[in-house]
Amino acid sequence: MHIHIENDASAPPALHLSRERLQQRLDAEPKLRSHFTLTENSDPAQTATFLANCDLLWSGRKLALDTFSTPRLSWVQVMSAGVEQWLAHWPQGVTLTNASGVHGDKGAEFILMAALMFNFGIPGFLQDQAQRLWRPSFGGCARGKTVLMLGVGGIGAAAANLLTAQGYRVIGVTRSGQCEADVARCIRTDAIDEVLPQVDVLVSTLPLTPQTEMLFDRRRLDLLPARAGIVIVGRAAVFDYTALRDKLCAGELAGAVLDVYPQEPLPVDDALWHTPGVVMTPHCSLDDHSAYLEGCLEVFIDNLVRYRSGEPLRNQVDVAKGY
Amino acid sequence: MHIHIENDASAPPALHLSRERLQQRLDAEPKLRSHFTLTENSDPAQTATFLANCDLLWSGRKLALDTFSTPRLSWVQVMSAGVEQWLAHWPQGVTLTNASGVHGDKGAEFILMAALMFNFGIPGFLQDQAQRLWRPSFGGCARGKTVLMLGVGGIGAAAANLLTAQGYRVIGVTRSGQCEADVARCIRTDAIDEVLPQVDVLVSTLPLTPQTEMLFDRRRLDLLPARAGIVIVGRAAVFDYTALRDKLCAGELAGAVLDVYPQEPLPVDDALWHTPGVVMTPHCSLDDHSAYLEGCLEVFIDNLVRYRSGEPLRNQVDVAKGY
Repeated sequence: MHIHIENDASAPPALHLSRERLQQRLDAEPKLRSHFTLTENSDPAQTATFLANCDLLWSGRKLALDTFSTPRLSWVQVMSAGVEQWLAHWPQGVTLTNASGVHGDKGAEFILMAALMFNFGIPGFLQDQAQRLWRPSFGGCARGKTVLMLGVGGIGAAAANLLTAQGYRVIGVTRSGQCEADVARCIRTDAIDEVLPQVDVLVSTLPLTPQTEMLFDRRRLDLLPARAGIVIVGRAAVFDYTALRDKLCAGELAGAVLDVYPQEPLPVDDALWHTPGVVMTPHCSLDDHSAYLEGCLEVFIDNLVRYRSGEPLRNQVDVAKGY
Repeated sequence: MHIHIENDASAPPALHLSRERLQQRLDAEPKLRSHFTLTENSDPAQTATFLANCDLLWSGRKLALDTFSTPRLSWVQVMSAGVEQWLAHWPQGVTLTNASGVHGDKGAEFILMAALMFNFGIPGFLQDQAQRLWRPSFGGCARGKTVLMLGVGGIGAAAANLLTAQGYRVIGVTRSGQCEADVARCIRTDAIDEVLPQVDVLVSTLPLTPQTEMLFDRRRLDLLPARAGIVIVGRAAVFDYTALRDKLCAGELAGAVLDVYPQEPLPVDDALWHTPGVVMTPHCSLDDHSAYLEGCLEVFIDNLVRYRSGEPLRNQVDVAKGY
C-alpha cells in the first residue's frame, strides 16, 4: 500500500513531513511496520504523477483533487482543521480526515486572553492611549461573565473547558445542541438569537459551511449588547465584516480580537486596520509551528492503525456537513 | 469606644463608607454589637476635630497623621494596599492595617491576561497593525513559560496560584525567600539577578519601601532577555521608567503592560504614551469598585472581632518594613 506525502514548498520547513520522519514513525509501530511504501514531493509539476499512484495521501498543500486522476486513492489526511477549500473539489468515495484538535491548546489560551482583554477594557484603553487620554474605569472580575462559544469542536471545546475553569459561564452552540465540553449550557445554532442579548464575549470557532456562511449578518450582530466583545478564530466568512466594522465605528460593540479576515493577507487599504476597538493578529494565533507537524502526525499514525484494523478513523470529515 | 470614618469627598460614592452601613454590620455581629459609637466625615476642615476624639479610624483618604493631634487613636484601617504615603507621617504606637487581599481576584485575572498577551505577541502585533503590516509568527503555548513574580502578597499570591494552574512555571520573589502561594520556586530578593535571564514574563506587585525603591534600575533590567515582557501593577517607583522606555525603544524587551506610572495621571507630554510595545491602563485594573468597599469592610469587621478578643489583626502593616 502506497502513501504519498505532498508538501507545500512555500510553507516553513517545520511544516514539511519528510519521508524519513514518517518511515521512522511507521517502523516504531508494530502494526504499521513493513506495510507501506512512501513517496514525498513538493514540486507542483510532479503532483499528478504521484497522485495517480497512491492509495493514501498526506497533504500539507491545498489541492483541487477532482482535477487529478486518483484511481487508487481512498483516504486523504490534511494538515488544516478547516476543509472548505478541499470540499469544493472533492472526488466521491474518498475519505477525508483533518487536523482538528491540533489547535486546541494554543487556541484555548488565545481565546482566554481575548476574553480577558475585553473584561479589562483593553480595546478602549488602546484608543485612549493613542490620544493620550487618562480615563480609568473600575469594572469587575471576568469570572461570572457570559461567553457564547460558536462551535464546540477541537478548538471550541478546549476553549470552553479553559474558560469554564476560569469561572466564565460558557454557552456552547452546536448543530445538535449537544456537546461534551464543560459548558453551562449548550444550544442549537437556530436558538442563538435568544441568548445574544446576554453575551459578554462572542467567540467563533466555526468552520465555513453552507449553514455557517454569513451566519452573523448585520441583523444578528445587532442583537449583541454594546458591552460585548467579539473573538473570531474560525472562518471569517461566518461574519459580515463590513457590518462588524460599522458597529465598532459606531461604538455599538466593546471591541473585536480578530485572527482571520475575508482576504488574507489583509489588503493594505482595508479600513479594518484602523477600525476603533480592533486588535488584529495575522492568522497565526492558533498555530504553534514547533508542535504542529507532530500533532498532525499523531492523528495520522493513530488513524493508520485504525485503518489497518478496519476501525473508524478519528477526525473524519462529514463531506455533506462540511466539517 | 469610638470609630471615626473619614471618607474622601473626591472618591466615587461606591467607595464611601456610610455610618449606617458600618452600624448595620456591627449590629449583625454579636461580638461587636453595642460596643462602638460612630462618626463619619468627608470635609477636610472638620477632620482634626474628629481625629482628636476617636479610638479607631477607618480612612478612605490619605492623611498626614502626625500633623494631627490623635491622643486616643490606637488603630487605623486604610482602604489601600500600598501604605508608603501613610508611613511617611506615622505616629508612634498606632497600629496600621491595610486592604491587602482586596485586589487579589481582579489583579490575578489582569496579570494572567498580560502574561498571555506577551505569549501571543500582542504588543508587537499592535505596532504592525498601526503600520498595516502582515507579519505572522507561529510561537508556542504559554504553558511552561517562566513568570517571575516580584512580591507574593495579596495580589502576587492570587496571581501566582492562577498562573501556576494555567501551566506557567512561577518563581516567587520575597524578602524571606519563602511564600505560601503555589509556585515552582521561591527565592529571596537578593537572588533575583541569577534568574532574570530565564524570565519570559516579569510581574511586579511590589510595594514601595526603602528596599524596593529603584530595585529595577537599568543594570537589572539589562539582565532580562529580549523575549521578556514586563507587567507592573505594584508601585511604579520600583522601576526606572526611563531605562524601561529606552529598552523598549531599542527592542530589547517584548513589551510592557503597565497600570502604574511615576506620575499619575501620566502627563500628556510623557513619552511613555507612544513608546513601542507599551500597553497602558490608567491605574484601575486591579480595583473593582463594585466589590472594593465590601472587601475592605470584611477585613475591618473581622479585625474588629479580633481586636475585641485581643487576637492579632489581619493585614497588619510592619511599620519598619513598610508593608
